[in-house]
Amino acid sequence: MIGVDWGTSSFRAYRIGPNGQVLDKASAHSGIMFVENGRFADVLRRTIQPWVNGGERRVLLSGMIGSRQGWVEAPYANCPAGAADLASATIPVTYDGAEVRIIPGVTTEEAGVPEVMRGEETQIIGALAEFGDRGVACMPGSHSKWVRIEGGRITGFSTYMTGEGFAALSGHTILGRMMKVDAPADPDALRQGLARSGDAGGLLRHLFGVRTLGLFGRLSETSAASYLSGLLLGHEVRAALAAHENAGPVVLIGDPKLCGLYADAIAFCGGAARNLAYEAAPAGLHRIGQAVAWAA
Amino acid sequence: MIGVDWGTSSFRAYRIGPNGQVLDKASAHSGIMFVENGRFADVLRRTIQPWVNGGERRVLLSGMIGSRQGWVEAPYANCPAGAADLASATIPVTYDGAEVRIIPGVTTEEAGVPEVMRGEETQIIGALAEFGDRGVACMPGSHSKWVRIEGGRITGFSTYMTGEGFAALSGHTILGRMMKVDAPADPDALRQGLARSGDAGGLLRHLFGVRTLGLFGRLSETSAASYLSGLLLGHEVRAALAAHENAGPVVLIGDPKLCGLYADAIAFCGGAARNLAYEAAPAGLHRIGQAVAWAA
Repeated sequence: MIGVDWGTSSFRAYRIGPNGQVLDKASAHSGIMFVENGRFADVLRRTIQPWVNGGERRVLLSGMIGSRQGWVEAPYANCPAGAADLASATIPVTYDGAEVRIIPGVTTEEAGVPEVMRGEETQIIGALAEFGDRGVACMPGSHSKWVRIEGGRITGFSTYMTGEGFAALSGHTILGRMMKVDAPADPDALRQGLARSGDAGGLLRHLFGVRTLGLFGRLSETSAASYLSGLLLGHEVRAALAAHENAGPVVLIGDPKLCGLYADAIAFCGGAARNLAYEAAPAGLHRIGQAVAWAA
Repeated sequence: MIGVDWGTSSFRAYRIGPNGQVLDKASAHSGIMFVENGRFADVLRRTIQPWVNGGERRVLLSGMIGSRQGWVEAPYANCPAGAADLASATIPVTYDGAEVRIIPGVTTEEAGVPEVMRGEETQIIGALAEFGDRGVACMPGSHSKWVRIEGGRITGFSTYMTGEGFAALSGHTILGRMMKVDAPADPDALRQGLARSGDAGGLLRHLFGVRTLGLFGRLSETSAASYLSGLLLGHEVRAALAAHENAGPVVLIGDPKLCGLYADAIAFCGGAARNLAYEAAPAGLHRIGQAVAWAA
């Protein structure tokens, strides 16, 4: 089969063997934000058509390609969501020469507020072996996800706007004037921010410390971004760890550098974490693909 | 005497009688950000010179005019800071025909992080009668201040970046796409945000609800800004009320509309508040002015 992790900015395709082994890979600068006039089929023709010509007839897509801005909107599946739930909720799209289906995103609700993910569910399914009967995953990013897994299914999750919050606060408030955002990371300042996040007062108060520590010459321009990053990361991690007590070590899935940062922050805040040592999307596409009732 | 509340964007001058009564007022579009090449004396010549010519020889300035970006930097006074402490720390500046002094800002430190204010200390001194032996003031703004007052002196305070946080998050994140920022306030959505701020998960998580509630059609474009405002306000007010238990009703000082919003938020979050019904700066300038050891 062919699996594609098709996000807002990235497109990664895999030719996957019957045991889940990745036989071939292709990537393109064809995230959905770069595709004009809905010409998604053209992207597939340019990228995976050789594999289709070679006999692969089943294509599974995951990610923002199933959003309102994508090819066809695949309505969110509800929690609990495992491989079979997702497979039975896939949505077909028309493509000449192969059967193409889109994996839906997942939604849940807590305290009257909905949560959504698209693409992350497929990675979770690909990493299920890491969780045993129950566990928790953290998927860092501009909107990071913390995901509860029980009995091989996603049973709940929450989103933290940490990365995008950092960008807005460092780029568009008075704090930005205190820092060189491009300076190399300062691990001491990061830890100082992580420590501060545990004090009383809350994030809105802690933020002002970036300014005052700078005013008094106690936080340099080259360290301030790391301090701010530590503050935000600490607020996320402390809240999320409190919500996932007794769930075992947090499994970090995503960009290795970002996962390393989160692993340190989780350890600093009293939790335990380990990084997934492999890319989870192909295994998820394979596992869900095995559960799909393909026409062909 | 003459008192001037001279901030970053505003300039308000008062001719003040011996009992503190405001005899005359002048304002100008001459906040320090609008004054070029350090020509601060020119602003006074254009605004208060008639009063000087009429016999007023003592001029006291408060606010950002004493900052590094102002006329002369007046180093911060430490807490506890009362009228006499501030008066003895005033800094003279040269002006032809009158004795002009600048009131310093105030600093304090808690958990290894400094706090600063400039201008607010003068308003607090002007409102001292409201606090009895001890109390707490809240001064809303883009950086709102919560101030502890004991025995007629400022003994501690904290700053929350609520207003500027709102501007950055509504203007420069994906949340901005969910809202019409200029829509009239929606009191129900504001209360919904205030209520949400009391849930577990923290601000970074609650923010994402602005997006998901919008995605699912449960928060309209015209209500989303009020919801976001309620979220941020609720996080500030809950943290600040917890830090000021048993301090009595919060005295709100500042813009009447903003103070009304805070009064509602404080009541919603279980606190008590009342709005100061008058402008506090002239009384503060007068009271500190009485304690200054004027040369003339």
